[in-house]
Amino acid sequence: MTAAPPSPFVVPGIDRALPPAARVREAYRRIAAADRPEVWITLRPETDVLAEAEAVQRRLDAGQRPALAGLLVAVKDNIDVAGMPTTAACPEYAYRPDTGATAVERLRAAGALVLGKTNLDQFATGLVGTRSPYGAVRCAWDPARVSGGSSSGSAVAVALGIADLGIGTDTAGSGRVPAAFQGIVGIKATPGIVPVTGIVPACADYDCVAVLAADLTTAHRALTVMAGPDGRDPRGRDWPADVHLAAPARPRVAVPRPADLTALTPGYLAAFAIAVERLAGIAEPVEVDVTGLLQTATLLYDGALVAERHAAVGQFLASRPAGADPVVAAIVGAAADVTGPQFAADVDAVVRARHLAQEVLADTDALLLPVTTEHPTIAAIAEDPVGINRRLGTFTNFANLLDMATVAVPAGEADGGPFGVMFVAGSMRDHVALDLAARWTGDRLCPPTDAVELLVVGSQLAGELDAVGARFLTEVATSAAYRLVVLPGEPERSALVHRGRGGEPVAGQLWAVSPGGLGQLLTALRAPLSLGPVELADGRLVTGLACAAEPAALGSHPG
Amino acid sequence: MTAAPPSPFVVPGIDRALPPAARVREAYRRIAAADRPEVWITLRPETDVLAEAEAVQRRLDAGQRPALAGLLVAVKDNIDVAGMPTTAACPEYAYRPDTGATAVERLRAAGALVLGKTNLDQFATGLVGTRSPYGAVRCAWDPARVSGGSSSGSAVAVALGIADLGIGTDTAGSGRVPAAFQGIVGIKATPGIVPVTGIVPACADYDCVAVLAADLTTAHRALTVMAGPDGRDPRGRDWPADVHLAAPARPRVAVPRPADLTALTPGYLAAFAIAVERLAGIAEPVEVDVTGLLQTATLLYDGALVAERHAAVGQFLASRPAGADPVVAAIVGAAADVTGPQFAADVDAVVRARHLAQEVLADTDALLLPVTTEHPTIAAIAEDPVGINRRLGTFTNFANLLDMATVAVPAGEADGGPFGVMFVAGSMRDHVALDLAARWTGDRLCPPTDAVELLVVGSQLAGELDAVGARFLTEVATSAAYRLVVLPGEPERSALVHRGRGGEPVAGQLWAVSPGGLGQLLTALRAPLSLGPVELADGRLVTGLACAAEPAALGSHPG
Repeated sequence: MTAAPPSPFVVPGIDRALPPAARVREAYRRIAAADRPEVWITLRPETDVLAEAEAVQRRLDAGQRPALAGLLVAVKDNIDVAGMPTTAACPEYAYRPDTGATAVERLRAAGALVLGKTNLDQFATGLVGTRSPYGAVRCAWDPARVSGGSSSGSAVAVALGIADLGIGTDTAGSGRVPAAFQGIVGIKATPGIVPVTGIVPACADYDCVAVLAADLTTAHRALTVMAGPDGRDPRGRDWPADVHLAAPARPRVAVPRPADLTALTPGYLAAFAIAVERLAGIAEPVEVDVTGLLQTATLLYDGALVAERHAAVGQFLASRPAGADPVVAAIVGAAADVTGPQFAADVDAVVRARHLAQEVLADTDALLLPVTTEHPTIAAIAEDPVGINRRLGTFTNFANLLDMATVAVPAGEADGGPFGVMFVAGSMRDHVALDLAARWTGDRLCPPTDAVELLVVGSQLAGELDAVGARFLTEVATSAAYRLVVLPGEPERSALVHRGRGGEPVAGQLWAVSPGGLGQLLTALRAPLSLGPVELADGRLVTGLACAAEPAALGSHPG
Repeated sequence: MTAAPPSPFVVPGIDRALPPAARVREAYRRIAAADRPEVWITLRPETDVLAEAEAVQRRLDAGQRPALAGLLVAVKDNIDVAGMPTTAACPEYAYRPDTGATAVERLRAAGALVLGKTNLDQFATGLVGTRSPYGAVRCAWDPARVSGGSSSGSAVAVALGIADLGIGTDTAGSGRVPAAFQGIVGIKATPGIVPVTGIVPACADYDCVAVLAADLTTAHRALTVMAGPDGRDPRGRDWPADVHLAAPARPRVAVPRPADLTALTPGYLAAFAIAVERLAGIAEPVEVDVTGLLQTATLLYDGALVAERHAAVGQFLASRPAGADPVVAAIVGAAADVTGPQFAADVDAVVRARHLAQEVLADTDALLLPVTTEHPTIAAIAEDPVGINRRLGTFTNFANLLDMATVAVPAGEADGGPFGVMFVAGSMRDHVALDLAARWTGDRLCPPTDAVELLVVGSQLAGELDAVGARFLTEVATSAAYRLVVLPGEPERSALVHRGRGGEPVAGQLWAVSPGGLGQLLTALRAPLSLGPVELADGRLVTGLACAAEPAALGSHPG
């Protein structure tokens, strides 16, 4: 059961059960058949990828289970792949790195196979997919319309069923917008969670890696592989010690007021209304005023922060204009005139907007928004390359400025094409947005890393588990060494007591919880409950809710 | 026993045992006797302060124990006090706020009494204390020398024994440098920990509140009162869920190489060598290359970031130059020419420097540095107002750029005046720097807030407590309901078992630990140890290390 409306835009993915080499061959057959040369800037020789597929096969044959074994990856060409040119869609800019970006190296170490480097809006500056000397990237479902950008080629390679994973970047919406136009999933974690080492900067303080896939399970598995500091990205960070790992049982999700949605086409407006109706199946929708967030969005291009783009590639474009896209060159060039005090003032505005956003969303777990406003044709973009592009970023531009986590998911159809919505959560609340997205799509998430497994018997901690963002994993049983005792007093509480050979298996629930959440839970316990190691039926030791005394002593216990 | 060298510069503080009103009267007597009119920009009428002192006395008489009852405060005049003008040492800039800065309001709510507003380097731009139309502030111990700045008046009011607390700001060292020149303590927490609501910005991204006092205990108590988000400062933040609350039992403290100390006078160099020798009494000194940190320091004034100062007060100074200090006006005015891309590039350099600093200090708990390089005369500053000032910030400028916590403490004498050193710790490691400073001075710190109290019996968790930054509080005993059992196996472990009426008091140690640290400890436990509520002899319930089973069952327990 899912909350998402049904969609006719089903990605014809390559059978996951096939061996890696067969999957590679099928991908190259599809690339040849697709007649979408503009998707790729550099395609690897099939034989090279096949050789890697055979290496993965050997790992499988040896009993290893790499998380992404045999999954095929399309990498946006502003992200380094060892030995392949990085162009950022500017041929003059090309260089050939010896090592790959951290994100790519981690995917490959987990068994993924890179097919090639994909087209993009030059220097990741655009949301349309047409700003490239390598050609305008056409939408997977309608060649007359734009693919969206800037991660255009990676998104289309996924939607055409060629790649299982599209790796892109997302500063203003460059991962989420093409995901929405292709009807696929796009995850853009809190800035810093996926290192940007080995990626051409667009706006260094706000650049993120985005991962695109046909389903949330696959995208999330790749995110899990890519996440975590690499010791090289100076902006890299980890989720905090008290990270929430799930949305609560009854989430509250903010939705914009009608007045915040005036930029949408009637078709998009109707599709979003359907999405909000369906949202009520998994969460309580709460209308909020998102004016402040949408105003923040304009800071990214219409304010002084675009000077970051000039700091990244302005000198290059000024000195070697030959390969430049004229729209991109104009945007970056204009930023040379920004003054330092203007820039400082806009950085200050961003800080204030972060604070405002926290207040706006304080009583909710996340925000549901349409990813974008409309799905333009390539011809319309050619006539108005800047105005429509700006409108497309209405709902995506603010997320990285405000240090937020977003997950874009398909939400049926609008104006004859795929329609997408986003779950937007506050800084470091990635798992909350992901959990809501999973409840939306019906997809499963893989288990969290770096969490503590906690065995709970009975329901007495339900409120506390919700409050610390614990994530339910599975029903389990203890080894045959325990007894479940009901404690005296109100409300009714029960606990495990270790009995050794005199015990029996006891049923319970296994939860994932952060170390900080576990500490919080511990301080909420009332005697004689305690937390300590408990043995499961499969022999594993986990932390469990136990009783610190024999029932005989309970009458006099402090509580 | 302290590690600090003895100092002849002992602050003649007003007797803490006197009633608040008597303390106020003595302070005003000292103000009149001191002949230091340049310390104050606005002094409150004595009768107003006495009325407040009587209100505090009524709280004391009613049995309340406000943390700062009757302590006298000097507030730097870039910090709002309700109803008093704020000048930032620029008479033309003056305004009269209705509400006080968060820091000041919190001090007053805790029973502190504000005496008045103190002189500063105009707009907090300077480390000398001479850049003010209200006069050059002379050192408390030697009127021919500078007081240091920019928190000049607050520091001198403390060192003369008039105020118990001096509240200042510290962007480049403005709290720590005057603390060192006066031979007193100065704490500058990680940026954001003390809200800057109601404070005139100097460099908004890097401004901090600083607290000055004759002893660490008093300064720390005030910091504890001022710390924590106020919901209004957009840069306000809290210590993280896994915050370390103490330095480890055997700290490693980085010290600079001789090559990093070439800016020091021979006298300062000799004094710092003594400090490093004494450091060995409380920590293992580890020589590191701090070149990168010192280079970062130059970004604050010599790079593009000074544009933040222009964003704060540039337009004001350009339009109303009458009251401007010429040196300050020149520094701020020059920042108008900084370009946006230059600013963006320097912000990027700061981010990279943060990363580098983490690497440099990765194997140590903190860094010991001299606060500054020399103690200039007022005449010398008049001749070279910019060059000497720049040198004074050699060791202080980088801390806020790098998001660090610092505590400046007296370290004896150099060149005939007080000499000060700083413990510098990484972002959010304030309690580590404070703990080291307390071991240095021999002062006590007040208990941490928001920590969990953990009862430990035996020494089996010593390593884990160290690793999570737990802080030892005190020896305690449980209520008479427990028994200490020694568990079978190696290494020897012991645990509390609850026995109800058949028990006895058991001795243990009470530790403070963060919720995240507690969760980490829990996952390190081996069965049958568990953590749960334990009753102390005084009836309080704390989390304690207990045994999840009766000893009879232990033989078969998973461990």
